[in-house]
Amino acid sequence: MGGVKRIAVLGSTGSIGRQALDVIRALPDKLEIVALTGNKNLKLLEEQIKELRPKMFCSSAKSDVSCGGQFLPVEEIASHPEVDLVIVATVGKAGLSATLAALRASKAVALANKEALVMAGEIIVREASIHHAQILPIDSEHSAIWQCLQGEETNPQRLFLTASGGPFYQYPQAQLAEVTPEQALRHPVWKMGKKVTIDSATLMNKGLEVIEAHWLFSFPFDSIEILIHPQSIVHSMVEFMDGSLKAQLSWPDMRLPIQYALSYPQRWSNPGLPQIDWNKIKSLDFEPVDYDRFPCLKLAVEAGKSGGTYPAVLCAADEVAVELFISRRISFTDIARIVQETLEQHPNISRPSLEEILAADNWARECATRLSLGNSRKQECRHKPATKR
Amino acid sequence: MGGVKRIAVLGSTGSIGRQALDVIRALPDKLEIVALTGNKNLKLLEEQIKELRPKMFCSSAKSDVSCGGQFLPVEEIASHPEVDLVIVATVGKAGLSATLAALRASKAVALANKEALVMAGEIIVREASIHHAQILPIDSEHSAIWQCLQGEETNPQRLFLTASGGPFYQYPQAQLAEVTPEQALRHPVWKMGKKVTIDSATLMNKGLEVIEAHWLFSFPFDSIEILIHPQSIVHSMVEFMDGSLKAQLSWPDMRLPIQYALSYPQRWSNPGLPQIDWNKIKSLDFEPVDYDRFPCLKLAVEAGKSGGTYPAVLCAADEVAVELFISRRISFTDIARIVQETLEQHPNISRPSLEEILAADNWARECATRLSLGNSRKQECRHKPATKR
Repeated sequence: MGGVKRIAVLGSTGSIGRQALDVIRALPDKLEIVALTGNKNLKLLEEQIKELRPKMFCSSAKSDVSCGGQFLPVEEIASHPEVDLVIVATVGKAGLSATLAALRASKAVALANKEALVMAGEIIVREASIHHAQILPIDSEHSAIWQCLQGEETNPQRLFLTASGGPFYQYPQAQLAEVTPEQALRHPVWKMGKKVTIDSATLMNKGLEVIEAHWLFSFPFDSIEILIHPQSIVHSMVEFMDGSLKAQLSWPDMRLPIQYALSYPQRWSNPGLPQIDWNKIKSLDFEPVDYDRFPCLKLAVEAGKSGGTYPAVLCAADEVAVELFISRRISFTDIARIVQETLEQHPNISRPSLEEILAADNWARECATRLSLGNSRKQECRHKPATKR
Repeated sequence: MGGVKRIAVLGSTGSIGRQALDVIRALPDKLEIVALTGNKNLKLLEEQIKELRPKMFCSSAKSDVSCGGQFLPVEEIASHPEVDLVIVATVGKAGLSATLAALRASKAVALANKEALVMAGEIIVREASIHHAQILPIDSEHSAIWQCLQGEETNPQRLFLTASGGPFYQYPQAQLAEVTPEQALRHPVWKMGKKVTIDSATLMNKGLEVIEAHWLFSFPFDSIEILIHPQSIVHSMVEFMDGSLKAQLSWPDMRLPIQYALSYPQRWSNPGLPQIDWNKIKSLDFEPVDYDRFPCLKLAVEAGKSGGTYPAVLCAADEVAVELFISRRISFTDIARIVQETLEQHPNISRPSLEEILAADNWARECATRLSLGNSRKQECRHKPATKR
């Protein structure tokens, strides 16, 4: 792609979407926005459409603002001939069908949506391979690993995902049940959406990232390790078979991994991106993670290893539990309990179809809701997955 | 090179040479020793010849041990048709002519010898380019930078060379004059030869490495920075134009960069190489270097920027001064003074020939000796370089 890359930003009103627009605005000779999609925040989407005048747009709510752009379904935008690269910055399973549509149209997909890979990693990787479509990671950890793997001809022996540890890493274990949504939403380093911030506090987020790394880099779970690194400067590391490691470092700012996915295999200068000042960084600390402190992390890695529909159930149950925690219906420690009980009640389906994955997702949402609000730890989820092999 | 690489180890009895032999012994299906050369330590060279039975060898002293090998001059070994890769692990200017001979025969040269690049970087880089010969760095810092540059299509914006800081980094400045050779030879991290260990204590070593990095990576001096990093785990870093950095990390052990130079572009598993244990590394500390504390570092970078015969004069004066410090003829702080005064008295020659470089080296040795032993700070060096343009 020699000229200007034509970009569709799916989920342009969310945290990652807004930062993606910042990057694209800063590089008008390299990047062009041809499509925007949003969901609930119609007001912001309309502002973006007025400013950026995309050829295509989509939103779940009705809008009178089009500025000459065409309203199209998300899947049609993702596979449109006038799109070179699709940024999937939607949250939750909404990104899954758009990701598949883009890959099947052989588009490069810059993927910020965790759930797509976690729920349907096998299907996504297979479709990308069949259609020679490239998946470009946007998560800072996966971008770091991807950067560190450039130019290496031999497979790594270990991946180290770093984790800030969230706000409760050194919090007294006994008091975790009393944690409020306000405390959990105060992330020490990153400014992110609410769901991701709570997932960072439980370390569920890191567990989902382990599953993502497994699929993105075809890497076995047992060789993916987690290091607590409170400063969030080292975004991840790769260890090679000779004992040498490469790390990627930068000031924690999502615009860098977003830009790298857009500039790859080049790098572009962007004065808006922060530079590391070594007068300010005295020390980088590392500590192997204590899985016992973070049951959500353990559950996620185990669900990833078991595979099948378990990761989709994990994702869905966690989404329900996090929403209920934010609305003060359950406690912080209930999140892990509900995810665990939902997984325990799920009859796993191995090598599931997309329909089976989506059915498991539905089942898990109902089950997790029932477990959360039933006030009984023994309550059973009678709704079994709708489709079976 | 698909099969076994045939290696000549020049300087096999020194610290780097012995570690190179360790690596080669551990990988008999990939590497074969075809030549060894030594200088003063004839006893060890004879042991190595008996064990490894090289086809060729060379030593400055007479030996009766050949074990079927042929005695040849070093330059002839370095350019011999049966050699694929030459490890130049000699110390001082001895490595220069062998390096040039190897490059002119289009051999891959794994270069541990600092002085060759510092004295004659322009000539070496030119000869390598003319003869399509590859220079593979062995210094841990340059190996780190080289590893971090793999697969990158755009030029970096800064290089960060890390430095342990040596034994005197936090030593009271006023007491540096009283430092003994025993104290200076006690390096906190690396086990190295005496000359390099003293150069690490004055940070002259880091200054020479800046000059090396300039030539190896065609990188401007003003974009090469030094960070004090006492743990010596991060061996150097590269910053790209988007603000992203890559670092190479490993347990401090010279066998890793030696092996990487031999395995490049592959990596090889070697159970003898140490792995990083993140239970033992709690923290990696960084601090911009204070040039005022380390006049040798400042002198080296300035000599590198001025170019011409200055770097050769710097090297030679430092070699003389370090020897005199080890034999207790001058004080620790005299090292920088003598190097500085020698440089001040030297009429620089820009774009010098090899002969002019070697003449400047000779002149500097005499001048530095005179300045050291004359006990007069104002004494002049009347010997001017023998050859001029």
